[in-house]
Amino acid sequence: MDLLKKIKIIKNGGVTTPSGFSANGIHCGLKRNGKEDLCLIFSETAATSAGVFTTNKVKAAPVTICQKQLKHNKIRAVIINSGNANACTGKNGLDDAWKMVKATAKVLNIEAKEVLVASTGRIGIKLPVEKVINGINKLKDVISKDGGHNSALAIMTTDLYPKEMALEFIIDKKKVRLGGICKGAGMIHPNMATMLCFLTCDINIEKKLLKKILEEAVNNSFNLITVDGDRSTNDTAVILANGMAGNGSIKEGSSDHEVLSGAVSFICRFFAKEIVRNGEGATKLVKINVVGSKTKVEAKKAAFAVANSSLVKTAIFGKDPNWGRVMSAVGTSGINIVEEKIDIYYGKNKIVAGGVGIEKVYPIVKKYLLGREIELTIDLNQGKEQVSVLTCDLTPEYVKINAGKS
Amino acid sequence: MDLLKKIKIIKNGGVTTPSGFSANGIHCGLKRNGKEDLCLIFSETAATSAGVFTTNKVKAAPVTICQKQLKHNKIRAVIINSGNANACTGKNGLDDAWKMVKATAKVLNIEAKEVLVASTGRIGIKLPVEKVINGINKLKDVISKDGGHNSALAIMTTDLYPKEMALEFIIDKKKVRLGGICKGAGMIHPNMATMLCFLTCDINIEKKLLKKILEEAVNNSFNLITVDGDRSTNDTAVILANGMAGNGSIKEGSSDHEVLSGAVSFICRFFAKEIVRNGEGATKLVKINVVGSKTKVEAKKAAFAVANSSLVKTAIFGKDPNWGRVMSAVGTSGINIVEEKIDIYYGKNKIVAGGVGIEKVYPIVKKYLLGREIELTIDLNQGKEQVSVLTCDLTPEYVKINAGKS
Repeated sequence: MDLLKKIKIIKNGGVTTPSGFSANGIHCGLKRNGKEDLCLIFSETAATSAGVFTTNKVKAAPVTICQKQLKHNKIRAVIINSGNANACTGKNGLDDAWKMVKATAKVLNIEAKEVLVASTGRIGIKLPVEKVINGINKLKDVISKDGGHNSALAIMTTDLYPKEMALEFIIDKKKVRLGGICKGAGMIHPNMATMLCFLTCDINIEKKLLKKILEEAVNNSFNLITVDGDRSTNDTAVILANGMAGNGSIKEGSSDHEVLSGAVSFICRFFAKEIVRNGEGATKLVKINVVGSKTKVEAKKAAFAVANSSLVKTAIFGKDPNWGRVMSAVGTSGINIVEEKIDIYYGKNKIVAGGVGIEKVYPIVKKYLLGREIELTIDLNQGKEQVSVLTCDLTPEYVKINAGKS
Repeated sequence: MDLLKKIKIIKNGGVTTPSGFSANGIHCGLKRNGKEDLCLIFSETAATSAGVFTTNKVKAAPVTICQKQLKHNKIRAVIINSGNANACTGKNGLDDAWKMVKATAKVLNIEAKEVLVASTGRIGIKLPVEKVINGINKLKDVISKDGGHNSALAIMTTDLYPKEMALEFIIDKKKVRLGGICKGAGMIHPNMATMLCFLTCDINIEKKLLKKILEEAVNNSFNLITVDGDRSTNDTAVILANGMAGNGSIKEGSSDHEVLSGAVSFICRFFAKEIVRNGEGATKLVKINVVGSKTKVEAKKAAFAVANSSLVKTAIFGKDPNWGRVMSAVGTSGINIVEEKIDIYYGKNKIVAGGVGIEKVYPIVKKYLLGREIELTIDLNQGKEQVSVLTCDLTPEYVKINAGKS
């Protein structure tokens, strides 16, 4: 089945494109530059929901609350602030996150158990919760179908541009829509790293299947990217499905299931790629393919070892065909290799054959490295499994941003 | 026993300070800037020897040869080049490394099996071995007691200054001397990472005990430092003990054993600290202590997670008391933590108590972070084990050096 033929990208679509969803983003006083820092997403009807969260053992207060809310309840609203992570804030932080939930429920006239909450920004600073609550009071009057773009702006931190998308496809002969917003930037690593992603959908679906579809999509997208190897305390990917498209139930393994899975994966992969392209200070998007591996686990280990190597990433920034650093990173990944079997390609240019460099290719690869999108393929020549990981180059700008000096 | 009282640092001492050793370093044509790039260390008598090498599965040709030579033979000479790693160079690389060994044996009139070889520099470029062999012919005429400093210069790559030291102490009532040279800089990570260390000693000792002492010293020094988390293909730490001090045999567990262990550890720790201080682009030396751990293994995992976090390292460069990044790194280290139990200190200033920041301390910590040597202590409050790791900050200059742009 050619999934792409069944999925239509909706021009200027976003988180409010599916039926029954409204949203908006405003400035409530958290970001010093006066930009949007508070976002509210609302569904007219209670939505079946699922979420995937950070694996960091230090979890932000809102993550703890979402995990609790999602265990039992249908969801009608998500309140998200940027500019403060409300992480490592102890009992006060948890109280503040609950205050956000309750204030949102109150202004929308829904139950507190129907509200999810998320935060992103600096860790360890007390949330100025009064500002946020004032903001929630204002937001309730402005949420609308037109507020999708402002929502995307309001969840940004160091992102260079907002990330939003919506898709349309057919399920059970009904036209259904899937939309979403996402933010990323630094601290991106498998298992999600300060990224927030909120998906909305008007499909009718069982919670269990929805969760499975989201988890698969996250594993094939956000969990295959890295910017700096750090993982955040706040990572959240949530999907709300409010059933307003009126389709009948979706059976596991059916072609409807396949189309929906394809659509959720498509949007997650799109966001994942945009996150890496927007990696702090990044000048190049880099795809690392490890092929010819005995197992997927080994391929993934090797791919992340290369993708997280500061030396590989700085060499790519420097447009330097320094494949030795790639070999060295594979060698330290902990997997079994046979050095004499390894081939390496920069784009389609084979630069290493059987563990040894092909010098005449270097000038060609130097030119190839001038591009904005770089692909490295490491063939272990030991088996048939493969994994691809997205990363970006490491630049002086990354350091300046994270040292607070840019 | 106060070891430091038993060990004397010899002013201007180095690799030729112990009896019977001579050395020198010259330019043979590998470094484009005309600086010293070839070093020869020679012992008048055959030396009991031991070595510790990279754990990277991609090993440079000279590493393979040293491991073979050290299995059986006493050693009389070490030939080392900088400016080319002779790694990932296939069968040709191995041939070239053997040519270095044989040329050295020939000019010194010793056997090939008595020669060790090491290389450091860029990976994957064929070694211009004729230049090296011409250099070896010249070196044989200039090795002397006065050549220690030039030897230290000749093994440098991106180091800012040469690293050398010699100690004197008493074993079996004889005055013995231990000297050495070392190089480090980028790609430094536990299990040694492009660092080379050559120790010479005039002590008389059994090979087995010598190896044990070297391994312990390396574990407590070079294996507790990190610059960028990458590990090299060429790491080598070697000790030669030629017996010329005339002491009787050293018993395991004796006070003589303890003094020698202390001396070897002292010199290795000194070099390890200098390597980190010289980390590529580093402006600050950073000590990460993890205390209150249930096990040493967990403490080490947490310490390296913090020491290798790009976000922690850039924050320290930016003099930013961003302890949230420290918490987050500990949370992703894979060890079991109780967030509410964690205390964090910057120097002696407690900035986090029970997982929550103490805001009034931030201005004090900002001032503390202006210093050149920074110490972070993370108390897990779960047990009694502790580990300290040395690292440095991550700076725009690191990126420029490794992108070939500085």
